Amino acid sequence: MKITVIGLGLIGGSMALDLKRTGFATEIIGVDNNEQHLQRALELGIADRKASLVEGVQQADVVIVAIPVDKMVQTLPIILDHISPFASVTDVGSTKKLIGDAVANHPNRGNYVAAHPMSGTENSGPDAALTGLFEQKICIICDHEKSRPQHVALVEKMYHSMGMDLAYMSSDEQDHTTANVSHLPHITAFALANAVLAASDRKIIFDLASGGFRSTVRLAKSSPEMWGPIFKQNQKYVVESLEIYIRHLEEFRESILDDDQTHMFQLMRNANRMREILNGESNDLIRKEEKTTKLYTK
Amino acid sequence: MKITVIGLGLIGGSMALDLKRTGFATEIIGVDNNEQHLQRALELGIADRKASLVEGVQQADVVIVAIPVDKMVQTLPIILDHISPFASVTDVGSTKKLIGDAVANHPNRGNYVAAHPMSGTENSGPDAALTGLFEQKICIICDHEKSRPQHVALVEKMYHSMGMDLAYMSSDEQDHTTANVSHLPHITAFALANAVLAASDRKIIFDLASGGFRSTVRLAKSSPEMWGPIFKQNQKYVVESLEIYIRHLEEFRESILDDDQTHMFQLMRNANRMREILNGESNDLIRKEEKTTKLYTK
Repeated sequence: MKITVIGLGLIGGSMALDLKRTGFATEIIGVDNNEQHLQRALELGIADRKASLVEGVQQADVVIVAIPVDKMVQTLPIILDHISPFASVTDVGSTKKLIGDAVANHPNRGNYVAAHPMSGTENSGPDAALTGLFEQKICIICDHEKSRPQHVALVEKMYHSMGMDLAYMSSDEQDHTTANVSHLPHITAFALANAVLAASDRKIIFDLASGGFRSTVRLAKSSPEMWGPIFKQNQKYVVESLEIYIRHLEEFRESILDDDQTHMFQLMRNANRMREILNGESNDLIRKEEKTTKLYTK
Repeated sequence: MKITVIGLGLIGGSMALDLKRTGFATEIIGVDNNEQHLQRALELGIADRKASLVEGVQQADVVIVAIPVDKMVQTLPIILDHISPFASVTDVGSTKKLIGDAVANHPNRGNYVAAHPMSGTENSGPDAALTGLFEQKICIICDHEKSRPQHVALVEKMYHSMGMDLAYMSSDEQDHTTANVSHLPHITAFALANAVLAASDRKIIFDLASGGFRSTVRLAKSSPEMWGPIFKQNQKYVVESLEIYIRHLEEFRESILDDDQTHMFQLMRNANRMREILNGESNDLIRKEEKTTKLYTK
């Protein structure tokens, strides 16, 4: 199957590597408006050959769009203008509502399957691409009823071939959910970096940063070009999520200021629940609940 | 050398393992008021034998105190009451000012070397102990002029044997610095966990948590018994640091609300500086500055 990947950075590049490795793609056609990235992707074996946007789209059985979400809104309609009638298109954007709106009335809307494979690192560009990045991670498929079934089936098969599990949501639900578990943690890390840079000199930071600090601040290294447009497109839910977070910080601050150990312990014990949730220790319970969770049925 | 470790959890246990491995300790005497932890430490080979607090202290060449900082304030004077005249005492508390104050006028104050080996994980108890936890990490020695030189020399040698580098600060400087690079990140993680738990159901969190979320929230799994007393003892600097952080979050929120992309990019670019600082890419510059940094000279 000929797959055209538009945007050969961390996510597009990692998908290309996996799809070639598993044999799902017989050829990867690379499209990128950054000529250096394009050359580097060819050198790294991420793409087999390069093409212009229109050529790449015309020749593809599947088009994967892995560019910042502001560019996505502009480019997706052009892509749908030029695809072959049988081609499937999917994207990897972290926001889904505005991207979906941009093609809502396009005659080829049915060829497009909105997706968000939830994985990544703090690095960007073709050199950041990794094999196995998506293994055992989840891919959210949005508004699948707006896509024609054969395209949904093919795109599902493609994400499965990369080792992903699938979840189904409306684009509004996905934007809300992702604001909490992905967009908010990026902002907490950006702000942590800025606060610590404002308060400490960098030699202190370099020398004293333990594993805990490095882990908590890691996402502050992420690309502004990728994240700026996400925060903009998901403004409503990101701001809501940030305000909930600030209230929890204020509550923690009050408990310290009032020297209210009971309250402080209560807050920490509640946060400790994250251990069993993330370790899947309450898995049996989760599996039982799954049957009744509407988000996960198609 | 006979070393008595009081508190056989993550830090005390990991130090015991390293000091035996390198041969610095010929015997580890374990003291813990949690009988289960004591038994487990013997089973795991962390301690060679157990003793009561007073017996353990009387028999030691070096006493390491690795208990929560509230207990430290109560226990350190008792330890200094019972040590042999030639024994050295060190602690591993994340706060230093109040602990130092608790023994300021003790006749054996000179035997005590205040230290903060900066390493750890989110786990606790003897089963969390790891060899090599302190390798290439920094240990802050505080107010060394209040300790007799032979005790400083021995304690320095001990931390060096575990692969640590040393920094020298007043206890006030250490509490201020550590509020930013260690205490604040713990609170940001506790509050992130609480905010996400308030906004999302746990199945969503379990399924959608990517590596980025896991990394940012990891410290929320940390022990309340250890961290509550730290926040209490370091109230002034922790609250100051938290308020700086909240202001940076508010600024980020404003930039999103106002859709001010220039401002948002500026904030993210500034945060991105963390990459080169943590990777040591500006190392040469840091090394040059080092000579003039008073914190790092004794």
